[in-house]
Amino acid sequence: MSLPTIAQPTCPHTETENMASIMQHNWTEPIDERAINAIRFLAVDMVQKAESGHPGMPMGAAPMAYALWEHFLRFNPADPAWPNRDRFVLSAGHGCALQYSLLHLCGFDLQMDDLKHFRQWNSRAPGHPEYGHTPGIEITTGPLGQGLGNAVGMAIAERALAAQFNGPNDKIIDHYTYVIASDGDLMEGVSSEVGSLAGHLGLGKLIVLYDNNHISIEGSTKITFTEDRAARFAAFGWHTQRVEDGNDVDAICRAIEAARQEQDRPSLIEVHTLIGYGSPHKQDTAAAHGSPLGAEEVKLTKQNLGWPEDKTFYVPDDVRDHFRTAIDRGARLQQEWQRGFDAWAKKFPKRAEEFQRRLAGKLPDGWRKHLPAFMPEDGPIATRKAGGLAQNAIAPDFPELMGGAADLSPSTDTVMGEAGEFQADNPAGRNMHFGVREHGMGTILSGMAVHGGLRPYGATFLVFSDYMRPPMRLAAMNGLPVIYIFTHDSIGMGEDGPTHQPVEQLLGLRSVPGLTVIRPADANETAQAWAMIMEHTHGPVALALTRQKLPVFEADLHERIREGVPRGAYILVDPTDDEKRDGETSARPDIVLLATGSEVHLAMQARDELKARGIRARVVSAPCISVFAEQPKDYRDQVLPAEIPILSVEAGRSLGWQPYWPEHPVTRTVALDHFGASAPGKVVMSHYGFTPDHVLEQAEACLREAQRKER
Amino acid sequence: MSLPTIAQPTCPHTETENMASIMQHNWTEPIDERAINAIRFLAVDMVQKAESGHPGMPMGAAPMAYALWEHFLRFNPADPAWPNRDRFVLSAGHGCALQYSLLHLCGFDLQMDDLKHFRQWNSRAPGHPEYGHTPGIEITTGPLGQGLGNAVGMAIAERALAAQFNGPNDKIIDHYTYVIASDGDLMEGVSSEVGSLAGHLGLGKLIVLYDNNHISIEGSTKITFTEDRAARFAAFGWHTQRVEDGNDVDAICRAIEAARQEQDRPSLIEVHTLIGYGSPHKQDTAAAHGSPLGAEEVKLTKQNLGWPEDKTFYVPDDVRDHFRTAIDRGARLQQEWQRGFDAWAKKFPKRAEEFQRRLAGKLPDGWRKHLPAFMPEDGPIATRKAGGLAQNAIAPDFPELMGGAADLSPSTDTVMGEAGEFQADNPAGRNMHFGVREHGMGTILSGMAVHGGLRPYGATFLVFSDYMRPPMRLAAMNGLPVIYIFTHDSIGMGEDGPTHQPVEQLLGLRSVPGLTVIRPADANETAQAWAMIMEHTHGPVALALTRQKLPVFEADLHERIREGVPRGAYILVDPTDDEKRDGETSARPDIVLLATGSEVHLAMQARDELKARGIRARVVSAPCISVFAEQPKDYRDQVLPAEIPILSVEAGRSLGWQPYWPEHPVTRTVALDHFGASAPGKVVMSHYGFTPDHVLEQAEACLREAQRKER
Repeated sequence: MSLPTIAQPTCPHTETENMASIMQHNWTEPIDERAINAIRFLAVDMVQKAESGHPGMPMGAAPMAYALWEHFLRFNPADPAWPNRDRFVLSAGHGCALQYSLLHLCGFDLQMDDLKHFRQWNSRAPGHPEYGHTPGIEITTGPLGQGLGNAVGMAIAERALAAQFNGPNDKIIDHYTYVIASDGDLMEGVSSEVGSLAGHLGLGKLIVLYDNNHISIEGSTKITFTEDRAARFAAFGWHTQRVEDGNDVDAICRAIEAARQEQDRPSLIEVHTLIGYGSPHKQDTAAAHGSPLGAEEVKLTKQNLGWPEDKTFYVPDDVRDHFRTAIDRGARLQQEWQRGFDAWAKKFPKRAEEFQRRLAGKLPDGWRKHLPAFMPEDGPIATRKAGGLAQNAIAPDFPELMGGAADLSPSTDTVMGEAGEFQADNPAGRNMHFGVREHGMGTILSGMAVHGGLRPYGATFLVFSDYMRPPMRLAAMNGLPVIYIFTHDSIGMGEDGPTHQPVEQLLGLRSVPGLTVIRPADANETAQAWAMIMEHTHGPVALALTRQKLPVFEADLHERIREGVPRGAYILVDPTDDEKRDGETSARPDIVLLATGSEVHLAMQARDELKARGIRARVVSAPCISVFAEQPKDYRDQVLPAEIPILSVEAGRSLGWQPYWPEHPVTRTVALDHFGASAPGKVVMSHYGFTPDHVLEQAEACLREAQRKER
Repeated sequence: MSLPTIAQPTCPHTETENMASIMQHNWTEPIDERAINAIRFLAVDMVQKAESGHPGMPMGAAPMAYALWEHFLRFNPADPAWPNRDRFVLSAGHGCALQYSLLHLCGFDLQMDDLKHFRQWNSRAPGHPEYGHTPGIEITTGPLGQGLGNAVGMAIAERALAAQFNGPNDKIIDHYTYVIASDGDLMEGVSSEVGSLAGHLGLGKLIVLYDNNHISIEGSTKITFTEDRAARFAAFGWHTQRVEDGNDVDAICRAIEAARQEQDRPSLIEVHTLIGYGSPHKQDTAAAHGSPLGAEEVKLTKQNLGWPEDKTFYVPDDVRDHFRTAIDRGARLQQEWQRGFDAWAKKFPKRAEEFQRRLAGKLPDGWRKHLPAFMPEDGPIATRKAGGLAQNAIAPDFPELMGGAADLSPSTDTVMGEAGEFQADNPAGRNMHFGVREHGMGTILSGMAVHGGLRPYGATFLVFSDYMRPPMRLAAMNGLPVIYIFTHDSIGMGEDGPTHQPVEQLLGLRSVPGLTVIRPADANETAQAWAMIMEHTHGPVALALTRQKLPVFEADLHERIREGVPRGAYILVDPTDDEKRDGETSARPDIVLLATGSEVHLAMQARDELKARGIRARVVSAPCISVFAEQPKDYRDQVLPAEIPILSVEAGRSLGWQPYWPEHPVTRTVALDHFGASAPGKVVMSHYGFTPDHVLEQAEACLREAQRKER
């Protein structure tokens, strides 16, 4: 292991017995250097033409990317969705020109014209890789650390699906997950969260090429990043290797092959590269990172690497032919898999049907009838508890449901009783232990979701959703059906105090475009929320649940709940309800009490007192504002008539309550515009105005104001 | 080093030559065990009486806390603000009953009655440690990982202030920073971010006691946290030790002393403990973590550890006397320091005055006159650039200004030209390299701020503020004057695309109670924003700045800008401005265009076009909504008269624009309710409706609506 140009395992546990045969293999061909330069200069030309982008990373990392794509990565350019393809994640998303070059050269549907419109409006080659936008991009990356976490999620999905579907001789799911990560990815804390968990789980088919180019935006990594990264990952239980020369394709291939041989641990291959490789004036400097080289420097670099300096977007014919062998190779790989799959499907038609249903993201039949119904006489129940019961009730229908909590499952009630624990020695288990790693959990959930075949969920306290905003934003951008379960959803959670009491989090989650937030008011609303979640397959959902117990609404409201929750907001009780009973004629309410979650019960209590005072109040429960906003106007007008004053009641910030329905100005809000305090939940709620009396008082003030305006 | 009960350094670099003398020292006394049990049972009784809280951690960690407080920690119970005290941070904030016991026993102003009201309304013993609420609490902790990062910030502050003020014989600032951290703290990714940076900076006076009790909420840490933590910190460049028996006070003391001897590296001491130590049925189980032991188990535990089982909140007299020696010791320590300080102050009165000014958080004289003024004829300038110029202009006045960026300083323009780099070998430098570690940066800034003597700032792109929400929330809760500089503040940043373009972040930051958000519209507003920031010493400020160049407003508006920015929002131009010129009489505007940041220029252009069409528009620039909301009503009514329709223009979510001024309903918004796209900034802006034409069109629609309503 002492050859200078070879992968040098730094970890004492490397399987040296396999290394001998690996080292005899020769991966390199004469065309390699030109193929690599073609990648480099497509990237350089893209950035130069766009006058924007990151040339340095592709120039340095092209050899490792080439080695991986040419010799190891199994993909089919004609079918980027082939279920058993290897996954490739460019966690260093700023280097996307590298990936676009490869996708184009290997025959994906990404044309030279797309490359020429790098970073332009509507281009298939945007400034960072975008999932669903460019064929072959597995997930949107760019915010550092995210892609690495997504890849851990993909590797978990592979492991889980393999355990669920493969037989001794049937490898239905059997692929690697490869990552190229940068210094920035490894500086982000989330890399340690997911690195630690990947090591614990022994994800042997996860292989990370770490592009150690010693440079980040502020200069040499010596100024801030001097830790021993390989040693950190070894501490996490990873297999680690080092390649000293990032241009040595053979050494890179040997390291990848050694990593593939290592089945029990994820692999980190630290590849030492030079950012902006080949540029006479910018190589190995931060100047090569995020700006075009400049026309003159592009020429000098082409000269320097023996590339025609007068040509742009140039791919020699033989190089193109060489890359395009990927098309036949990919077709053959997928055909082979398909033959195996078909044979398996014949033997196990039900399992195959299940596999295809899950990959297609379709729901099974008949699950709705397993949703639980709760009765008021069974006593008050926290919505977290009801959520756990609902989830457990439908879990057998959804073997794709898999997830866990950030070390809070006894508090979030998110364990699926019959599903077993997902561990290295029990990959068929579906209950995961994410540890106190909310951010990592978020990135992993996205990777599991985008892989296909699973419906992942993750739970923590609502206030700690703050730790996982970056992956939630990306899940929303990617349209991934991830389920976030956030319990302890208000100051009503009590004694833990302001550090644990959410105030601005509901607003913060609702502010993310495409993230659906549901805050049910009782156990039956919670069951219906789970139904909404399962049917919401085009984007993430955050479910906000109480720690404290809440009454169950009366049985005569249950049909309304079933019909109303899926519409986002609905009339829970109306003055006419009483009047019908009392034989009176129906008439419009004087005021609408518009509330969410636990505060709906305050509105109900205030309504009773208002009634005693001759004021006719409607209570609207609004578990999901964004879904209500998408309802037809006539439904919205029916629930919240324009002319009737509204009092909103929610133990969160007042900000945001008006513009949800601009045509229906809320006259007043009962809200919380400061941090909470440590005391029993009811005491805190009461001190901050979340009492029936205060709601009543505000409702009356609201009516007085409305009358004043009318006059 | 082979004695079984002794600190066993796992790191090869431990200074073994000092260990011999350390090991000869005997720290323990006969009273120790009873003193430790007094701590344990105060905590147990607190939790039991409150019927809420975390008894297990205090029971296991009491010996290490006792060892630290009794033998090493330098503090004065009579003056918790003594500037040169050692800092102690309970990063495992859920174990606060441990700290309250120590504070009470050592004579801080925390009475037995406070302990008896643990976790009750208005108690000085809330559910997690709260800074500014309980004497002796250095910073609010609880959300895991935060305290560890805060402590790194405190150790950085100590290092910086020592370099700035100490002389060869004058140790004005010379203290240690100690932390007790838990498994949960180390699972959080932020622990790696700050661990890596602390190692890089060689913070030798930072000592972390890691309470490794093998248990977290979901059970044994074996289920998810099996990495070698000490090896991870060794990879970060830390000095690491392990104490096998967490009840062995002597071994803990030896390890702490060895850590103190190590001057060049921060220290991690992994102490193996048993959660719920002494409880016959709950020791070493997750059941001891977050719930009271139960009355019967409390009795059994007291029996088991030889404590009077019939007494609660019991402190034997001799144990109390023993702890209370801390009062005299503390007074003596502070007096000694004060004598040294006074002698130093005599020798260097100016430096002493500076030291005291900075500790008091007072501003120096005359700094305002150094604020730059920008003229339109100098050409357009990005507000990030103007921010850098303003900051640099006042930096010499504020030697307490210290900070940097999360590896983006060339883009955020936040380097102070003359201030040098803060590094292990240059601790007097004030420009920091945080690396790509936004979350860690946030926690460190809070620690630096709460230490006293510094005004810390940290910069990144606005979209990446998502990575640092947990520490920003806590900075707001703690009222810490931290400065966040967020550039690239809209889709106008361009080609990097939706992953890098903020949409919901302005709303998200404004939603945090106590976080002041300023988004200036041009270079002079930016200079005034810096003035606001420096004067805002009671809470954090987030400054949102553009990547793109913006025109500088005309000179005749500069006085308005100077007077208006500090009021949060102001009339930038009014129809009467022209009329005065044209000799017309003044009259009320037809419409208000209310905008922030770069969008104010769109409003200005639309206003010109409206004028050409005979519509009289006022442009209000609103750089800081929360400050405007605090202005007297007559000022607010003057700027935004109730009867005039408003069109808001901001390249962020529409949500939130109405309720900022509920008495002034915004009729329409030009806003952005979806993610961005990759293309040049102007192109993206234009496609999403941020053009003068679209603003004009919306203004006219707004007027038509208003007229319709009037009819």
